[in-house]
Amino acid sequence: MARLAKKRDFPVSQVRRYLEPGPIVLVSSAARGETNIMTMGWHTCMEFTPALIGCIIASGNHSHLMVRESGECVINLPTTALTDIVVGIGNSSGSEIDKFAHFGLTAQKAQHVGAPLIGECHANLECRLVDESLVARYNFFIFEVVKAHVAPSPKHPETLHYTGDGVFMVSGKIISRQSKFLPEML
Amino acid sequence: MARLAKKRDFPVSQVRRYLEPGPIVLVSSAARGETNIMTMGWHTCMEFTPALIGCIIASGNHSHLMVRESGECVINLPTTALTDIVVGIGNSSGSEIDKFAHFGLTAQKAQHVGAPLIGECHANLECRLVDESLVARYNFFIFEVVKAHVAPSPKHPETLHYTGDGVFMVSGKIISRQSKFLPEML
Repeated sequence: MARLAKKRDFPVSQVRRYLEPGPIVLVSSAARGETNIMTMGWHTCMEFTPALIGCIIASGNHSHLMVRESGECVINLPTTALTDIVVGIGNSSGSEIDKFAHFGLTAQKAQHVGAPLIGECHANLECRLVDESLVARYNFFIFEVVKAHVAPSPKHPETLHYTGDGVFMVSGKIISRQSKFLPEML
Repeated sequence: MARLAKKRDFPVSQVRRYLEPGPIVLVSSAARGETNIMTMGWHTCMEFTPALIGCIIASGNHSHLMVRESGECVINLPTTALTDIVVGIGNSSGSEIDKFAHFGLTAQKAQHVGAPLIGECHANLECRLVDESLVARYNFFIFEVVKAHVAPSPKHPETLHYTGDGVFMVSGKIISRQSKFLPEML
């Protein structure tokens, strides 16, 4: 089980650092006095400034209406220390259980949105829904990250990358080729 | 350097297997008698059937107009064996060099699109542009994968996951929790 990590403010224009590698994330939401958490693997960075994230939240998810109604969510980054909780969250429904209570997770107050941060996650990105033009057709939401909180260490935590069929790839090992990049590409 | 891998047809409804983990991919395109290759880290699965992929191809890329004009591309999955070629492709422009020739890559004929497959990659996904409604605003393209070619082994190749700043995370190690998934979630 991951412990609560002390986090620092992190520049929202640099959240690609945590999302571009493609990890499974946990989306927390709040609406009508209840909270929920879902797993999400279908997301992409869309812009640095404003810091835009596009993602699929299928209409069958209990979180779908909560995010639409509130226009907000938090995208939380779990590490491999939370593997079994991630699997449990992805295989249960917020219509039946209180996921924070059931999985022993700590709901922390966000600064700019009503949805709670998940304290045990390595990073928490407070998000506002800014474009729902593709929600009806594809369940595709575009969020702006308005505040980011990140644990300063480890610098490259082990993250989970879902392949389907109950199997995750693990990232953590690093290859640097910084010296081979053009300055304007860094 | 990766060798040419013999590939088999792969069900397009299952391409999340290779894209959902979030690897850097190589996008090949063809238009007006020339070909090009770009690196891409901002992509997401959007639907199983049809097999939809959303991605950002910035307007500053030489590939942007080639993909818009042709309405097609191939999304190719490189492994860590191609790390230095991936970096080279991301730090050069198709307006100045022929990337297939410069990097010694093999252009193979696709079945349904004019863009070439990159023979040295582990998987090749032939794509047709199906929705450009968000291109003007976000450079966001939605493609349908119409044909997939995948090398049957290794089953979990080491892939590159870009973090920015010239640094990649590497995925390859596997965690399976299949027994903990609900049957309908697999």
